[in-house]
Amino acid sequence: MQTNSSVFLGDKYYNREHLNFILFDVLKADTVTKYEYFSDHDKEALQMYIDATDQFAKEYLFPHLVEMDRKQPELVDGRIRVHHVHKDIMLKSGENGWISILASKEVGGLQMPAVFSTAASFILGAANYSGCVFVGLTMGAAHLIETFADKKYHDVYLPKMFAGQWQGTMALTEPGAGSSLSDVVTTAEKQDDGTYKIVGQKIFISCGDSDAVDNVVHLLLARVKGAPTGTKGISMFIVPRERIKQEGILEHNDVTSIGVYHKMGYKGAPIAHLSFGENNDCTGWLVGEENKGLSYMFQMMNEARISVGLHATSISSAAYYASLKYANERLQGRNIAEKNPELPQTPIINHADVKRMLLFQKTFIDGALCLELQCSYFSDLARVTEGEEQEQYYRETRIHTIHEGTTAIHGLDLLGRKVMMKGGKAVMFLMQEVMGDIAKAKQHDNTKMHAATLEKKLGQLQDLSMHLMGVAQKEGVEAYLSDATLYLELFGTLVMGWQWLKMANTCNESATLDADFKDSKFLCCNYFFEYELPKAEGLFTRLKSTNRVTVGVNSKLID
Amino acid sequence: MQTNSSVFLGDKYYNREHLNFILFDVLKADTVTKYEYFSDHDKEALQMYIDATDQFAKEYLFPHLVEMDRKQPELVDGRIRVHHVHKDIMLKSGENGWISILASKEVGGLQMPAVFSTAASFILGAANYSGCVFVGLTMGAAHLIETFADKKYHDVYLPKMFAGQWQGTMALTEPGAGSSLSDVVTTAEKQDDGTYKIVGQKIFISCGDSDAVDNVVHLLLARVKGAPTGTKGISMFIVPRERIKQEGILEHNDVTSIGVYHKMGYKGAPIAHLSFGENNDCTGWLVGEENKGLSYMFQMMNEARISVGLHATSISSAAYYASLKYANERLQGRNIAEKNPELPQTPIINHADVKRMLLFQKTFIDGALCLELQCSYFSDLARVTEGEEQEQYYRETRIHTIHEGTTAIHGLDLLGRKVMMKGGKAVMFLMQEVMGDIAKAKQHDNTKMHAATLEKKLGQLQDLSMHLMGVAQKEGVEAYLSDATLYLELFGTLVMGWQWLKMANTCNESATLDADFKDSKFLCCNYFFEYELPKAEGLFTRLKSTNRVTVGVNSKLID
Repeated sequence: MQTNSSVFLGDKYYNREHLNFILFDVLKADTVTKYEYFSDHDKEALQMYIDATDQFAKEYLFPHLVEMDRKQPELVDGRIRVHHVHKDIMLKSGENGWISILASKEVGGLQMPAVFSTAASFILGAANYSGCVFVGLTMGAAHLIETFADKKYHDVYLPKMFAGQWQGTMALTEPGAGSSLSDVVTTAEKQDDGTYKIVGQKIFISCGDSDAVDNVVHLLLARVKGAPTGTKGISMFIVPRERIKQEGILEHNDVTSIGVYHKMGYKGAPIAHLSFGENNDCTGWLVGEENKGLSYMFQMMNEARISVGLHATSISSAAYYASLKYANERLQGRNIAEKNPELPQTPIINHADVKRMLLFQKTFIDGALCLELQCSYFSDLARVTEGEEQEQYYRETRIHTIHEGTTAIHGLDLLGRKVMMKGGKAVMFLMQEVMGDIAKAKQHDNTKMHAATLEKKLGQLQDLSMHLMGVAQKEGVEAYLSDATLYLELFGTLVMGWQWLKMANTCNESATLDADFKDSKFLCCNYFFEYELPKAEGLFTRLKSTNRVTVGVNSKLID
Repeated sequence: MQTNSSVFLGDKYYNREHLNFILFDVLKADTVTKYEYFSDHDKEALQMYIDATDQFAKEYLFPHLVEMDRKQPELVDGRIRVHHVHKDIMLKSGENGWISILASKEVGGLQMPAVFSTAASFILGAANYSGCVFVGLTMGAAHLIETFADKKYHDVYLPKMFAGQWQGTMALTEPGAGSSLSDVVTTAEKQDDGTYKIVGQKIFISCGDSDAVDNVVHLLLARVKGAPTGTKGISMFIVPRERIKQEGILEHNDVTSIGVYHKMGYKGAPIAHLSFGENNDCTGWLVGEENKGLSYMFQMMNEARISVGLHATSISSAAYYASLKYANERLQGRNIAEKNPELPQTPIINHADVKRMLLFQKTFIDGALCLELQCSYFSDLARVTEGEEQEQYYRETRIHTIHEGTTAIHGLDLLGRKVMMKGGKAVMFLMQEVMGDIAKAKQHDNTKMHAATLEKKLGQLQDLSMHLMGVAQKEGVEAYLSDATLYLELFGTLVMGWQWLKMANTCNESATLDADFKDSKFLCCNYFFEYELPKAEGLFTRLKSTNRVTVGVNSKLID
């Protein structure tokens, strides 16, 4: 008997009731359809869309979860071979309009509110992240083409991408340029016909190649010969694996896969090392203007960052339901106060420490989903109300949804840019929103203590931020930002507390929600404030300390 | 090009200077040789022993680290096949006396102080844990036979085990009895000749089978027919895979491998699912008396627990040196205050946040090693001074060295037993020891603030313990122990702070240690008190709260 981890998986990977609660009770997100831009949709249609996504996940994604993890993509003769179901997933997603769901009607899209697309993406990711990531990347790449590329390219790429026949990527990272994109060295040389010759390598490109599609459309960053150094000299190009020779005929564009990586937790999707222009025959088409590539890319990067945060949550959701199933089934020991060994053993979920661990998982997952959907909802509102302030605020909160490899970069971004921008206006808007929910929570006996706790911590956060600005002035930027990662962790803890107050408020104000359902939310809120919020205390202590430790210390002493 | 993680590994996996510092400067562990029991050894011999271990690790263990992880053990026809080098490792360990190093001279052992054996084990584990775990288990099993089995079994098993020709295991866990050993159901039926027929299954048995040795000697827990229920009815048996038919002739003892597991981080060693007595032909030999098996097993279990804690540290050490190498080699970005993109990129170790993460790794690893060696040193002292109090104290601190799967069980053990035993005497001894180091640390400018911090926290810990005893009386044992895991975490944080003060004291008092070496220790001490000790604050807040959250709550609300 070999181990077979699939026996630990049940058939539940997310909580539909919780998702509905956030969409329709907490956010009332369907009300966004009253705006002209989204007026083709109504609540019933949106619910059907979620139903259809659920069904698709059940049929095409979840059944292949274990198999995709085991049979990993392979590199064979410069091409990456993936699991056969990827082809079905792409075509089916195309058929059902899922790839074009956010695109404007102008380019053949459905103009769906982003909050529902995000909810759908959560379901797909929880079912099988490796299976759905191709779809999300194709949406993001198509969105870049729609937004920044000349209209003549729309017809060439968008219909094929929306149909799931071609897929898209974001090709940024190079062996020497990961977090530091100013160091990109891939070159682009302008030709007489207005196209560019591309030469260089890109590495760690998610879904960078796949035999499940007829073509892979790379949105690639490169430096035009003679461009300024640093980020001000980076341009964006459309670089398809196969270029369009004439109507319907594809010809190889000198893009070759030279490596494949398998990332833990994501092994069904290929991570490619790509070579462009090995035979000096790789053509790229400029997107927008030269040297503005990085600002364009940040549209897709920002979407990808939300997606990374969302899918950290979706995978955690699936892991949580596997844990929960095990905790309910696994018998071990008895109640701690029970000494009689002849009594039957108890499911481990009845041990207090196991409950604590499950609540740790659950409150972060359910709270993060609430935050992520709220962010998408705000982005929908920003689109239809054209309120610049609202959009700032969206960007402000968005940053907290992300915990990927570059957590430290997000810490720097939060403390170094977002907190200070426009005189702290973004944070002010956020605080107003939080204070509104605190005021409501103070009205109810089961939340008023927690509301007071959060209010106090927000005051401490403001003091801390002022203190740190003093550090910036007196000691300089390196000292100011040295613990930005911890500041992000602190900020995120408080924001998550806010989400739980908000959900508890909805329950306290609802006359229709089921009593057990409400009690479950109150339990989670109580857990979060009792076990997680206290972690802010140590972070405050550290962040207010004037003992720098890591700044100015000789790195040779770390041996 | 496929990924090859071996390129990230350097040739350093532990810090010999740090190890020497703990052994010879902080603990002065060689002074234990003044006692009669250890008088065959002297400082020079002990140093040579560490040298020889280092050399062995370099030649036999580290070179196979990556390969063992890739070529995992396989189950073929009821036998588990392992990497070929395991045979060399066992025989070489036997030849050099490493398996018998702790055993008494009476049974052919070397009577080495445990603190040096622990240091050696650390080196081997850092080089390749999967490669050295067979040796450690064989030592533990042999020690059980030496201590509790009738002398007539010594000659049968110990010479072969000490030579590395046979290996040992601890066979406790069953599919339905992991943490709850009172639920063991493997049966033993007494035969006319005084032996027992064994029938049952054991699962997750580390190194439970291997074709690298001629025989596997299981120290197995089973229930004699008619024995009392619960832990009071568990007996221990020697159950070899091959029984000794007559001098030198082995005959199969109806022990079959029916499954093999590969544990993450430990994939070169087989984890076996074993069946005993499928054909009703499995013989076991009773160790000691019937129904006392669990108390015997705790000798090996306690050794294994120290070993698990130690090897968590040794593997972390190897991981740390891989991180450090990468952080020194990987160029990315520039100093945060530097805007000129034409300057060369900097090694990431120069970023404050990377320093912080490296110091997080380093201070836990170096501090844990100091604690673990101190525990072994106390066990040596306990042996030679026969001071019962000293031995209690050893058991008290030992518990903190362990963070394996059963962390929660250790929390229960600490708060439910150790803290209270003999009226809190064990904790009192520990506190005296810590207060002595605090008093020293107050004498020096670079540690006096940290000493005051630790002193204050110890006072809070005493208050908390009193508070919790009140909870036990008023609300019962379930409420008292509900957050025992957090209590363990808090206790461990303070103990680790103590270790750093102790190391800093040694540096402050030494006239011979290198200045940079001392500065490195002071940096670590400063890091630990600035970044890690503040985490105690949130734990105090939670542990003093009267809001129970997880106790008495209906587990159906966790969904």
